Amino acid sequence: MKDTTEIRGPCAPLSWEEGRLTILDQTLLPTVERRMELETVADVWEAIRALRIRGAPAIGCCAAFGLLVALRERAPGNVAAAARVVKEAAEYLATSRPTAVNLFWALDRMRRAAASCAAVADVAEFTARLEDEARAIFEENLRICRAIGDHGAALVRDGDGILTHCNAGALATAGYGTALAVVFRVHELGRRIHVFADETRPLLQGARLTAWELDRAGIDVTVLCDSMAARVMREGQVQLVIVGADRIAANGDTANKIGTYGVAVLAKAHGIPFYVAAPSTTFDFSLPDGEGIPIEDRPAEEITEAWGVRTAPGGVKVYNPAFDVTPAELIAGFITEAGVLRPPFQDALAVLRTG
Amino acid sequence: MKDTTEIRGPCAPLSWEEGRLTILDQTLLPTVERRMELETVADVWEAIRALRIRGAPAIGCCAAFGLLVALRERAPGNVAAAARVVKEAAEYLATSRPTAVNLFWALDRMRRAAASCAAVADVAEFTARLEDEARAIFEENLRICRAIGDHGAALVRDGDGILTHCNAGALATAGYGTALAVVFRVHELGRRIHVFADETRPLLQGARLTAWELDRAGIDVTVLCDSMAARVMREGQVQLVIVGADRIAANGDTANKIGTYGVAVLAKAHGIPFYVAAPSTTFDFSLPDGEGIPIEDRPAEEITEAWGVRTAPGGVKVYNPAFDVTPAELIAGFITEAGVLRPPFQDALAVLRTG
Repeated sequence: MKDTTEIRGPCAPLSWEEGRLTILDQTLLPTVERRMELETVADVWEAIRALRIRGAPAIGCCAAFGLLVALRERAPGNVAAAARVVKEAAEYLATSRPTAVNLFWALDRMRRAAASCAAVADVAEFTARLEDEARAIFEENLRICRAIGDHGAALVRDGDGILTHCNAGALATAGYGTALAVVFRVHELGRRIHVFADETRPLLQGARLTAWELDRAGIDVTVLCDSMAARVMREGQVQLVIVGADRIAANGDTANKIGTYGVAVLAKAHGIPFYVAAPSTTFDFSLPDGEGIPIEDRPAEEITEAWGVRTAPGGVKVYNPAFDVTPAELIAGFITEAGVLRPPFQDALAVLRTG
Repeated sequence: MKDTTEIRGPCAPLSWEEGRLTILDQTLLPTVERRMELETVADVWEAIRALRIRGAPAIGCCAAFGLLVALRERAPGNVAAAARVVKEAAEYLATSRPTAVNLFWALDRMRRAAASCAAVADVAEFTARLEDEARAIFEENLRICRAIGDHGAALVRDGDGILTHCNAGALATAGYGTALAVVFRVHELGRRIHVFADETRPLLQGARLTAWELDRAGIDVTVLCDSMAARVMREGQVQLVIVGADRIAANGDTANKIGTYGVAVLAKAHGIPFYVAAPSTTFDFSLPDGEGIPIEDRPAEEITEAWGVRTAPGGVKVYNPAFDVTPAELIAGFITEAGVLRPPFQDALAVLRTG
């Protein structure tokens, strides 16, 4: 099933062409590269639920286009019926990943676009307006990712080693990534870099996804177990760390994939700057600090029964938080579409609040 | 295949009873607890090679008893023939794990015992003297482990959380462990403790072996991914870290399973004391510091094809050192059979040199 097309450069997790929504099935990576069309709104729901498409911005884009899939599938006869299709499909898709904030944000934006169409003449125009909105969501995310790449590139010198954790890549966004946007941009600029991809237990997004998309883009990448990051840092092979973020509090405390905090502590101990790359929508100014960020506990089986093989005694206690919080004082800067924001963050982040 | 016998307390990785050598097959843990008799010297060789028995002291004991298996198998007619059997079998067993220093040490000790038997009357007495030597090797290791447990117990208070990495347990020794000897002793003393077992990628000795033997002994244990250690430390759940060692240089720099160094850095950052438990035979005074300790690179497939499933793109670079070196300045003390040795190590370790 290996795709024979040679793709160099960031790989798009989804595409919308001639009214058809296609995704790359991320559950099959890295061994099988299969694109699948989502033909019905039920297909879209299942693809998000089953993590065939994942990463907050990518999910938001997929859901937005999913409403267009619903319109084609249901073929409403007039604008009022079309508005009902959008409303129902949005409610349905919102149940696919109940904790994905970006999913609700994208669906809400599409609903507002539908609501503004009450006066349009026919279903074709209604659909065209919604298609414009979905494309706008997609294009905006792509622009934000490219801006993150541009700003972050200034931090990377020729010959640098960059360590990253989990997957904050093209696959998680509309197509260029956040942490990996910096890597892609630096590579485009012709600077030689080397990326160390933490495999990222338990679900191995680093080994499965980050290594896959960097390797495919022709970028020098080495996979290592999470426990090996300290050693490559001590060996002097890492000049900077760049990770993504799930949620950032007003003081800069950052929730991201479990293991990120440990990487930040290790970076500090080795005098290596630790950067967080994230769009401004990731900042949650309603939270004064990281204390208020809820941390999801995941099933024990992700650790003890990976790949269908039991690797710990039955019934033994397991600790499996999905995220951890990196305190702001370990962070050298935030790479956002508005620029690189440096400490003191209370002041620096103000630009995002007002912007 | 689950053993129905309830065993509480440390589990013996091998036993020698009525002239028969039996081991617990560690490759089947934690799901299957199967004891197998090693009936021929070829069985002994295969068991060591295939990691059915592992851990330097356990391998040494197994090889020593393996020479008695050879004597029974070959049934030499006189003492000179018996000495030849021991010599040949020792040479053969030495090829099972060519880098296991403890294996050569145990075999040499058995060869010296055989050499001292030139004047004995018959094969029965020759065999009895060699059996005494093998038992002495075994019993000595058990005594050393128990002494480590006794000395280390003084460091642990009721209610403490202890984090460990890899498996330095009963399974790796004659039967009581090194790092886990402290845990077993504290548990025997009735102090309530909680152990966090890093799963220890890539081969998961923490999840498969440490969690198994602690759980079996009725000790409260939680398995976590290596990347989660930082978070439990920050949560205040860990009061001390205890790990084993493969080789310790004269200044205290310590080689141990990959990931140990990162744990030591994290412990330091959180103000948690980091102890190394090891017999005095682990110290290599010929090496002034950790720079001279060779680090074995292991096959990429241990990381990318764990459990028969490919988890990283084919052909991608992989970093997989088997060990790392923790600099002495991160170590709060060495728990040895001679007591707990604290900095400055140059002075403290002298007791082992002269002792």
